Amino acid sequence: MYINLISHYLPQQIIPNSYFKEVNGLSEEWILNRTGIKERRKALKSENTNTMAEEAVNIAIKKLPYSINDIDLIIGATYSPYDTVGTLAHYIQNQFNISDTKSISVSSACSSFINSIEIVEGYFATNKIEKALVIASEHNTAYHNKMDMQAGHLWGDGAASFFISKKKFSDKDFQILDVNTTGLGNVGKSIEAVMLRPNYGGIKMPFGKDVFIHATRYMVKSINDILLKNKLNINDVDYIIPHQANLKIIENIRVQLGVEKEKVLISIDKLGNTGCASTPITFSQNLHKFKKGDLIVFTVFGGGYSSGAMLVSK
Amino acid sequence: MYINLISHYLPQQIIPNSYFKEVNGLSEEWILNRTGIKERRKALKSENTNTMAEEAVNIAIKKLPYSINDIDLIIGATYSPYDTVGTLAHYIQNQFNISDTKSISVSSACSSFINSIEIVEGYFATNKIEKALVIASEHNTAYHNKMDMQAGHLWGDGAASFFISKKKFSDKDFQILDVNTTGLGNVGKSIEAVMLRPNYGGIKMPFGKDVFIHATRYMVKSINDILLKNKLNINDVDYIIPHQANLKIIENIRVQLGVEKEKVLISIDKLGNTGCASTPITFSQNLHKFKKGDLIVFTVFGGGYSSGAMLVSK
Repeated sequence: MYINLISHYLPQQIIPNSYFKEVNGLSEEWILNRTGIKERRKALKSENTNTMAEEAVNIAIKKLPYSINDIDLIIGATYSPYDTVGTLAHYIQNQFNISDTKSISVSSACSSFINSIEIVEGYFATNKIEKALVIASEHNTAYHNKMDMQAGHLWGDGAASFFISKKKFSDKDFQILDVNTTGLGNVGKSIEAVMLRPNYGGIKMPFGKDVFIHATRYMVKSINDILLKNKLNINDVDYIIPHQANLKIIENIRVQLGVEKEKVLISIDKLGNTGCASTPITFSQNLHKFKKGDLIVFTVFGGGYSSGAMLVSK
Repeated sequence: MYINLISHYLPQQIIPNSYFKEVNGLSEEWILNRTGIKERRKALKSENTNTMAEEAVNIAIKKLPYSINDIDLIIGATYSPYDTVGTLAHYIQNQFNISDTKSISVSSACSSFINSIEIVEGYFATNKIEKALVIASEHNTAYHNKMDMQAGHLWGDGAASFFISKKKFSDKDFQILDVNTTGLGNVGKSIEAVMLRPNYGGIKMPFGKDVFIHATRYMVKSINDILLKNKLNINDVDYIIPHQANLKIIENIRVQLGVEKEKVLISIDKLGNTGCASTPITFSQNLHKFKKGDLIVFTVFGGGYSSGAMLVSK
């Protein structure tokens, strides 16, 4: 399957680390040293999970090599929904007046985007659809407690769109060579390490160390597994796009894999943790870097827990 | 694909119509006449979307013809999540200590269960999995406003589990002959007719008439489409299991289809609207009725909007 078009949208409002000094008591340097985050984006009051996704699609639509009405599957990937009934996918169907499409929204926390790609793969295998739109959008600031010293400063908002079809439409397209996900609800502190309970205080992250241990283990394992399955080696990989939760996690993974810094793409410094939108946003921001023949691997880890990887070639 | 086992769980707490007289001002008779609902179940304070699903799986597990650890895909279907990070699927993975499984949770409102079955179909088509557990669970009373005169009295809580595999395990198994879903975000008042916005007051249903018009249209269309595709006629159908939102909607569908009352299975009188869990619960409650050779069709409609149908044979 091919990625025909990619876009992302970031809210204009920038929240620098200095903002948190009076909010949760953490200094600019403390936050930067512990997380690698310098600033993050925050949606305006007029924005939400759905409108950010709409903006991302609006950015893409002018370049789409087919009509948006040709889309026959819309998947909204988010753990920070605006509406769980008129979901992210249904909102996009509504705003772009797309008829005869399947619409679902999916959460597997920060893995939701990669899980959504795997669901597309399944729909392609049934021959029920030809063209899918996967939108990852997170409105973390709608659910986080900015005064929380453990996690208030970590989160950012943003959205990305991936138009995926069975067919290649241009030489700019990327091919998805493989995708795989794994649920990890059975390891570590899984379901209590990161929580977003809408009726119980929103986002909480009481067990950061447990997240660190499992994220560094399973993001490396996900890459190694997908490379092995495809008879590839880490040296074949030109770029790694890891989930952007913490620069220390990313650096740990980089060292374990033994790859150069230039190969690991980063957005966390400017965007914080944008949830399941973090890898597609990072990919979209770096499109100018990718050359014909490049091999790019996504690796993600989510609360709950969950992991996944995707292998893409230019 | 085959349904190897089905179960459901209902909270013990019964809320009769008489409860609402002092809560939202509606009388027992008014509610019964307008909705067909006599009573509904309400989760205890110690229960939530995840624990109800766990109870449903606990009821099933003794009869499961394979180890629950053989499950390689868990899908949680819900629009009323307890936690969007440690999702319904991840919680079930955790509680039953299931390793090496994919875990995702899905919302397409009251269609979520049928959408989940279609996702299973896709995973089967990729040959990535052999056995799936689909859990539908709704904790409507965690998000509704019982004082709301439009919808406070409509909702009930409950959960159901479906164990699905590529293989038939016994003569008690059902075969899923076909499943299809359609997003309807582009018709009528779709994304504003029913809402569950966790940060904006939970469940609201400001356009009940628009829901009625589209539910009666698309639940009939979904049945007719799936029968036509499978070269079947409505007279071939032994039982219809419609989404249980309102007895007037169900009766309208029955008359449009021209089928006898005995063929249309009902749980709304005792359970209210149990969201996407309504059709699997109703199916589970009526297992004793189904004879060898019976053809059963599910038809659903959800806020957002969305629709779907599933054809099952005994």
